Amino acid sequence: MSERVTIQIEDGVADVRFNRPDKMNALDSEQFAAILAAGERLKTEKGVRCVVLSGEGKAFCAGLDMGNFGKMADGSRKAGESSTGGALDDRTHGEANSAQYAALVWRDLPMPVIAAVHGVAFGGGFQIMLGADIRYTAPDTKLSVMEAKWGLVPDMAGFVLMRHLAREDVVRELTYTARIFSGEEAYHYGFATRICADPRAEAFKTAREIASKNPDAMRADKRIFKLAAMGSSADVLKAESIEQVKLIGSPNQVEAVMSNLQKRAANYKD
Amino acid sequence: MSERVTIQIEDGVADVRFNRPDKMNALDSEQFAAILAAGERLKTEKGVRCVVLSGEGKAFCAGLDMGNFGKMADGSRKAGESSTGGALDDRTHGEANSAQYAALVWRDLPMPVIAAVHGVAFGGGFQIMLGADIRYTAPDTKLSVMEAKWGLVPDMAGFVLMRHLAREDVVRELTYTARIFSGEEAYHYGFATRICADPRAEAFKTAREIASKNPDAMRADKRIFKLAAMGSSADVLKAESIEQVKLIGSPNQVEAVMSNLQKRAANYKD
Amino acid sequence: MSERVTIQIEDGVADVRFNRPDKMNALDSEQFAAILAAGERLKTEKGVRCVVLSGEGKAFCAGLDMGNFGKMADGSRKAGESSTGGALDDRTHGEANSAQYAALVWRDLPMPVIAAVHGVAFGGGFQIMLGADIRYTAPDTKLSVMEAKWGLVPDMAGFVLMRHLAREDVVRELTYTARIFSGEEAYHYGFATRICADPRAEAFKTAREIASKNPDAMRADKRIFKLAAMGSSADVLKAESIEQVKLIGSPNQVEAVMSNLQKRAANYKD
Repeated sequence: MSERVTIQIEDGVADVRFNRPDKMNALDSEQFAAILAAGERLKTEKGVRCVVLSGEGKAFCAGLDMGNFGKMADGSRKAGESSTGGALDDRTHGEANSAQYAALVWRDLPMPVIAAVHGVAFGGGFQIMLGADIRYTAPDTKLSVMEAKWGLVPDMAGFVLMRHLAREDVVRELTYTARIFSGEEAYHYGFATRICADPRAEAFKTAREIASKNPDAMRADKRIFKLAAMGSSADVLKAESIEQVKLIGSPNQVEAVMSNLQKRAANYKD
Repeated sequence: MSERVTIQIEDGVADVRFNRPDKMNALDSEQFAAILAAGERLKTEKGVRCVVLSGEGKAFCAGLDMGNFGKMADGSRKAGESSTGGALDDRTHGEANSAQYAALVWRDLPMPVIAAVHGVAFGGGFQIMLGADIRYTAPDTKLSVMEAKWGLVPDMAGFVLMRHLAREDVVRELTYTARIFSGEEAYHYGFATRICADPRAEAFKTAREIASKNPDAMRADKRIFKLAAMGSSADVLKAESIEQVKLIGSPNQVEAVMSNLQKRAANYKD
Repeated sequence: MSERVTIQIEDGVADVRFNRPDKMNALDSEQFAAILAAGERLKTEKGVRCVVLSGEGKAFCAGLDMGNFGKMADGSRKAGESSTGGALDDRTHGEANSAQYAALVWRDLPMPVIAAVHGVAFGGGFQIMLGADIRYTAPDTKLSVMEAKWGLVPDMAGFVLMRHLAREDVVRELTYTARIFSGEEAYHYGFATRICADPRAEAFKTAREIASKNPDAMRADKRIFKLAAMGSSADVLKAESIEQVKLIGSPNQVEAVMSNLQKRAANYKD
């Protein structure tokens, strides 16, 4: 039995790979379940300081498995049924349904997540990559807010994720037209943090850099970022202070200062 | 009697033109009334899948009619009187007064709206173009947040529209200085989605593309975008699911899937 | 006794300079106090229409004084103690603590503020520059969200200021890695409004331009911008109208119109 999503942890960096290469990592109910399981495992996995998310084979993720569209065409998919098997309007994961949570779970992980995107990121695959903190993309990657092609709206958290990355008019044009755009364009629109010839190599470089920092500060940053997306200034300012109070003088923070003053590598406890 | 705003509908695309070319489509109370009437008509017009908004003659819209400033100078304009004739602080159109609604009505239309901007878009004209979903602009267009020139603040919804398009510091600089900038600069700031030699031709091309998509999905997208501007993640995620439940398996959505699988043009019902 | 922050007012423009050049304007408790005092004074200073903020010597501001980190390392800084002397989680300035208010006070000034940034803007210095309305930066300036280097989170309002300037993924990458970036990069990310060889000269040019506008409109703009950062569309639209009602027909607004129609310099009353 093949594992649909693999996780390798080394030196504090988790290498998470979508592993359905014969289908360009397309999303059927089994693939959704594997992605959610990987996310849930990493929430509590000890010693993981950064996650790199990528796809095995020729693509990051081609989006919804074609079987889903066949069922829509022949009427065998019931109205309101989710691609994950549940009901679309069920809030199974906090504010989200299970398909949305395949994109949002990466924002809920306690540590930073970098998506390394190559080949194809369409529809659901595009929305999953948006769930990462940071995105590195090859220039020739093909991306699309694909749903309009199938007469649908993006419904895997695309609307809540895109609004913080690209301008509203760009998001509207891409959503209305389902146009395919390149990694190079994605960078100019705001959907890629960097374009690089080898996104995975670059992502691991940044991941190791992040893993060399005080893990308590990284996790505090991530918590504040979550609040800062839409939170009031009063709430965010308060969170900055509360997190900082916990950090100052803590063993890992003192180690950060000492290692810097002594010009040596830091040795943090997870 | 000349029509101040003309509407031609062909193949699902409404060609809406400001038609006061001798005054560069400047905004007097009659022009405001004609714009609002055009918007209201399109809200319920059957068979319109996309709107293209442009100006007849040499400009998109030169802003407030000079007569308004004359009245301000000689004191014949009463304090609190709107350029549309009503009271400025009256909320005649939901959250907006009637002048603000000349810009916002395009966001309230059920279908996508593309502004094709050439010549001049100053003050109120600039704010009206921001009300469109998407903006194509000629590189030599002259634009300005002009109000500071007249000792005023932009008050036709500019503050709620600009914040989603350009960076806060850029918006501040342009608002404080009333500097005139080019279409090329507008593109770099974020006020133009594309710069093109012939914005109207390009806008119609995209409009026809949008008109070839499932109109129910386009309208659902537009509803969610309206919510996504400032809505909570919980509300937006829920809206994604509720809209999708209505689309999946509906006749137009099945037609979208079938036409794609059969590689033929779709035939949607409006 | 040297003044830690100097203020020179000429032709309506306040030249505010951080004046601890031997320490690259680093932030110790005395420097924090001087910055806050300067901000408080400008809130009520008559005749100031624009503020230019810059640093004397080789840097804008190098961030927290090294003495603070020494105290963190040797444990002599108590948990929860602020670099300003107070308690970090005390809300001494509205929604903010006193260190956060060193960045936010510039947003609370009634008139526009332009930061002219050269040399170095690290950590707290970087966050203070973000508090200005507009930022001009030399291309070779070195900037950093530096806190991760010391095992900390940015807690001088960085999270509430950065979210309106740069994309969320860019902010995350810079915050997690504490990477030093150039003024040129800062411009591309969104942290600089312009890059210029001589940011101070350019800032004064814009400041004089702003000072030549109706000061009542500038202050109204600034009030609306504060609300527009996160306010509901209903609140912002209402504020546009209420501010405009106060401006139309007021002496300074009539002077704006008259001076324009008569093609002469305006003569406003502060």
